[in-house]
Amino acid sequence: MVMPLKKITEVGLIERFAKALKPCDPSVVVSIGDDAAVVRGAKGCYRLYTVDMLVEGTHFKKGESYKKVGYKAMAVSISDIAAMGGEPQYALISVGLPKKNAQTEAQKLFKGAASCARKFNVDVIGGDTNCSSKLVIDCFVAGKVEEKNLALRSGAKPGDHIFVSGLLGGSILGKHLTFEPRLKEARFLVKNFKVTSMIDLSDGLGVDLNRLSYASALGAIIFEDRIPMARGVKKIKNALFDGEDFELLFTLSPEDSFRLLRMMKKNKFAMSFYQIGRMTDFFSGVRMMTRENKVEEVGCDGFKHF
Amino acid sequence: MVMPLKKITEVGLIERFAKALKPCDPSVVVSIGDDAAVVRGAKGCYRLYTVDMLVEGTHFKKGESYKKVGYKAMAVSISDIAAMGGEPQYALISVGLPKKNAQTEAQKLFKGAASCARKFNVDVIGGDTNCSSKLVIDCFVAGKVEEKNLALRSGAKPGDHIFVSGLLGGSILGKHLTFEPRLKEARFLVKNFKVTSMIDLSDGLGVDLNRLSYASALGAIIFEDRIPMARGVKKIKNALFDGEDFELLFTLSPEDSFRLLRMMKKNKFAMSFYQIGRMTDFFSGVRMMTRENKVEEVGCDGFKHF
Repeated sequence: MVMPLKKITEVGLIERFAKALKPCDPSVVVSIGDDAAVVRGAKGCYRLYTVDMLVEGTHFKKGESYKKVGYKAMAVSISDIAAMGGEPQYALISVGLPKKNAQTEAQKLFKGAASCARKFNVDVIGGDTNCSSKLVIDCFVAGKVEEKNLALRSGAKPGDHIFVSGLLGGSILGKHLTFEPRLKEARFLVKNFKVTSMIDLSDGLGVDLNRLSYASALGAIIFEDRIPMARGVKKIKNALFDGEDFELLFTLSPEDSFRLLRMMKKNKFAMSFYQIGRMTDFFSGVRMMTRENKVEEVGCDGFKHF
Repeated sequence: MVMPLKKITEVGLIERFAKALKPCDPSVVVSIGDDAAVVRGAKGCYRLYTVDMLVEGTHFKKGESYKKVGYKAMAVSISDIAAMGGEPQYALISVGLPKKNAQTEAQKLFKGAASCARKFNVDVIGGDTNCSSKLVIDCFVAGKVEEKNLALRSGAKPGDHIFVSGLLGGSILGKHLTFEPRLKEARFLVKNFKVTSMIDLSDGLGVDLNRLSYASALGAIIFEDRIPMARGVKKIKNALFDGEDFELLFTLSPEDSFRLLRMMKKNKFAMSFYQIGRMTDFFSGVRMMTRENKVEEVGCDGFKHF
């Protein structure tokens, strides 16, 4: 069985209140429960809204470079917009920071956030700064996506092939502060293929494949020997459960999958996509075929042996 | 002299970085420095974006009712949209909260925020929940305003009459957690008058009149005997410097001012507006005529005697 939502979202309390917060306005296309909220915009476009908060001690260590923390805050939200197939446009940044050297530290924080924003053509148009004993930064990003290019978590079909956009695991050793949101890759995909579902890997392939499967009301099977592992990562559990990879996890129909793989073979390709499995029916759950040809259930906190 | 911006914005560090964060996209009409950011929308409308962070120990006491804190977080951001003459539409809420009883407490927080959102027709469409040793809540609100109804801080003209929408001072005794954003009042004003400038009173009339004057490149004179004081507030300095009144401060041409005052006399009027002074030239600064007919400079942290 696919993990029940309440087990999946230990980290996403707000999703439990989604029902109570059901939107009233018909302009809301997707509310709580995807990488970003979707509302109707102008000229065949949707508007996208997302927010991510980073807290000292949870998302980065005390004493971490403020510039890197600022960069990460912006990158995490841009990654959410990418996972919807969209383009980020505007950002607002809220910061709570310790009084000591507040101005110097704030400058570093905004410098980091602005460097990431500039790289992805995002304008920082507002924010709020406050005193707080521990550093906290919350980054809101608004974006847009053509209606036909919107990619949700919920659209995968049985038999669709599952892909990831890069190497997994070990992000906590440093990459989580410097990663590049897969915006270019996501835009390439939605413009050239029918991306049936997509999510960014914030909590690890194990958790996020369960999220995508649950949203699509399907199961999934992935193959251990196809999962691309980051340099230095030796154990499959790190590739699945370390989290903060911020790679794209997405599905394509078998036809589109073959077309993508052919394109990658033919051309000099600056992007990497790895086909790691396929979607199955809901009741077979989320599973992995090991190198020893054993089938294991992939939970949110580890494997369960049958 | 009007207070220099750097003195005004002790509480708004981000405004100091506004220059470095200058937006590139021509769709951005107003960036950092007003109550909300303004970008071009569809069909003669602008879109409005604002965010406000509340931190335990700064904006509310430890142990304060989570429901009230949730309400306040939403109300503060709705008040910002009102101060632009706009209507709030969507909200995203980020929360950092202590692990202990996280779920029960989060529920109270969202309940409070949702009750305020519902009252003003705002849909909560996203958010993020995290662990944090101290409670922190950051509320982003998106809204819209007809182009002709947009009210900025910067549009006041010399001779314009200055108004506030309610009684000032003493908010910290409780009102700051339960206040009603002046959305109805702001919409009434922009629909019926040419509101030349507007701001909401978050840091007190003293600070915010300096902000509005600076943005409009003007000075101002207010009259002590006209400043409406909240029940129990005895000293004028409390009405000017307590902060968190969340009333509207706005300016109208003398013609519009007389028309508003006539309307208020003629009709049974559920709203209250108080004319407290008028805009002057930049070099005369922000001043108050006392009950003893003395003229004092109104700074951001108190009076300066000439």
